[in-house]
Amino acid sequence: MNIKGTPYRSIWVPEESSNTHANPPASVRIIDQRQLPHRFVVEDLQTKEDVFRAIRDMHLRGAPLIGAAAAYGMWLAALQQARDGGRPSAEGLLRDADDLAEARPTAVNLAWALERQKAVLREAEASGADPSVLPERLLAEAIAIADEDVAMNHAIGQQGLGLIKAMHTLNPERPVQILTHCNAGWLATVDWGTATSPMYQAHDAGIPVHVWVDETRPRNQGAQLTAWELGQHGVPHTLIVDNAGGHLMQHGQVDMVITGTDRTTRTGDVCNKIGTYLKALAAKDNGVPFYVALPSPTIDWEVRDGLTEIPIEERGEAEVRVVPGWKDDADAAAEVRICPPETRAANPAFDVTPSRLVTGLITERGVCDPSEAGLVGLFPEHDAATV
Amino acid sequence: MNIKGTPYRSIWVPEESSNTHANPPASVRIIDQRQLPHRFVVEDLQTKEDVFRAIRDMHLRGAPLIGAAAAYGMWLAALQQARDGGRPSAEGLLRDADDLAEARPTAVNLAWALERQKAVLREAEASGADPSVLPERLLAEAIAIADEDVAMNHAIGQQGLGLIKAMHTLNPERPVQILTHCNAGWLATVDWGTATSPMYQAHDAGIPVHVWVDETRPRNQGAQLTAWELGQHGVPHTLIVDNAGGHLMQHGQVDMVITGTDRTTRTGDVCNKIGTYLKALAAKDNGVPFYVALPSPTIDWEVRDGLTEIPIEERGEAEVRVVPGWKDDADAAAEVRICPPETRAANPAFDVTPSRLVTGLITERGVCDPSEAGLVGLFPEHDAATV
Repeated sequence: MNIKGTPYRSIWVPEESSNTHANPPASVRIIDQRQLPHRFVVEDLQTKEDVFRAIRDMHLRGAPLIGAAAAYGMWLAALQQARDGGRPSAEGLLRDADDLAEARPTAVNLAWALERQKAVLREAEASGADPSVLPERLLAEAIAIADEDVAMNHAIGQQGLGLIKAMHTLNPERPVQILTHCNAGWLATVDWGTATSPMYQAHDAGIPVHVWVDETRPRNQGAQLTAWELGQHGVPHTLIVDNAGGHLMQHGQVDMVITGTDRTTRTGDVCNKIGTYLKALAAKDNGVPFYVALPSPTIDWEVRDGLTEIPIEERGEAEVRVVPGWKDDADAAAEVRICPPETRAANPAFDVTPSRLVTGLITERGVCDPSEAGLVGLFPEHDAATV
Repeated sequence: MNIKGTPYRSIWVPEESSNTHANPPASVRIIDQRQLPHRFVVEDLQTKEDVFRAIRDMHLRGAPLIGAAAAYGMWLAALQQARDGGRPSAEGLLRDADDLAEARPTAVNLAWALERQKAVLREAEASGADPSVLPERLLAEAIAIADEDVAMNHAIGQQGLGLIKAMHTLNPERPVQILTHCNAGWLATVDWGTATSPMYQAHDAGIPVHVWVDETRPRNQGAQLTAWELGQHGVPHTLIVDNAGGHLMQHGQVDMVITGTDRTTRTGDVCNKIGTYLKALAAKDNGVPFYVALPSPTIDWEVRDGLTEIPIEERGEAEVRVVPGWKDDADAAAEVRICPPETRAANPAFDVTPSRLVTGLITERGVCDPSEAGLVGLFPEHDAATV
């Protein structure tokens, strides 16, 4: 998507790095998302250690982006070996992959992307390829992982675009009013995002859209990231507190809701950022369609009941008690405590929206009912009868 | 309620002021609520101008407290006249009342309390009383207004206490888990509060309660005021973001919700702080009783449909974009911007919870169905057939 008119991805190899023996050393670039929206800082990752730190310390976040970063990290690891000791070795690189996996041990996409790179290494070993080909093979796989993510998100956007077009036809007099929660935006993926992909594609196609951006306490990803990326690309939007969406729906100011999801059950329950459930209840109560955009890898085909089977991460109290931001009068980052010093806080990070509240799931293969029949219809390879 | 073990009201006349000709000058004391929870500052109001500023600049807030403050302000005005020019005049004091009413023109309780003081002035004039009696009569009426508020809130608490006791009997193994939104606490009234009154009375009666405190963005009255006052009085509580309540209800961690209300319709619709509606939806979806505590003066007997008839105040963008708090590393108040500098925000301050989502209304006369029949049953003087 665009930043001040220039197209970006959330991770990329700078042109001068495309030759793996280039000088300056090859690198991968990311946007340091910890500093958004207050500072736009591009970070150059030159070693697997740089990548490890960037993942662990959340310079980047979002499952697809974490996976892509780890994949590129394996390329950097191979180049390091070549620089340090002559020829890279598949054995050493397999150990590097295990190291990288520890950067965020619970991130499913991280393990998955590293598994793909390990398969590349094993295949090279099995076929007796010269180890000097490893860097370019790992780079090719990393590029493939990134490009596949972009293609999947683009396909999700195409599917969602149809829904927005239909909504615009119903009420052509005003922009289509879309509410979203948290950041399922391009910053969480390699490009397009999931929930935002239909919005970007509608906007780019000239269909007027306006997005209500939930600030998304406690981490404020809506205020910090979604508002920033929509603004940079030029999509009209308005920031609201998480409390406001129900009122807007009661007064006809929301035509549809589109959110992302961290995990979707076989039966169409959706586990997403805390507060999603409340918006789904309000959408149902007001007849507002509630859509969830997801790449199929986030479907957990083993889970049938989201409420009882998905454990919800309880995060630290500080995120509730202390709000980070920008102190304009000092022109510096700062954080403020908003409660008494002795007040304790609870901080469940996700909630589960039961499928009965979801209008449709927007996947890369199409829009389906939030049900086993709907999902298996689009992904017959997961039909229990055939598994 | 207690602050560090000492009983307080939110407004009081210090003992040395009880003689209206005392030296130092008579005064009224309040807690400067703008500084809570970070600093506990008692403010001495000695003139009607002090009271005007305190109301206008929100050193105090909450409809009942604003009314009581204005009533005491009239006493101070009469003493000022006595000091400045000899004998107070009813005519001049009627003008002072009109001046004070401008401090927050839309506050219904402010106008109502000043109307009561104007009646005192007119009656004194009509009966030919010596103007020198005006200060003591105005003080007596101010005390009556404050005491009536305390009595009404105490009665609300007694009614709500029955509900909490019943809940405790159902599940005596654990504290009764109560969720509340915003601050309908004693700081918004003269004492007890409305939504908090049942909680304080249950706690004082030895019934274990635990309160989930919604932070209540954008102004964070839950984090700043409710958490503070519950903590000072010793009521166990936990701060949560506004997004979390639905998840807690899904997992059986909330036994009942009690909120306040700014305005209740004849039919039991409830207009309260933005986000209340979302909690009511979640309560309904999970079979959690949703109660609203209200003194009967907040019932608007003229309004039948809250959603279409109650105008919702749209407040400034800054409350959404900028979060005030305490910068611990500088030991000073500070505020941080949480979104890009160019991001626009919308800020509806209230929403309407339709009566169908409300389990019961807790009034000073009893708990009733959220319906015209329920309300008129308790307040037969408002029966349309007899009006």
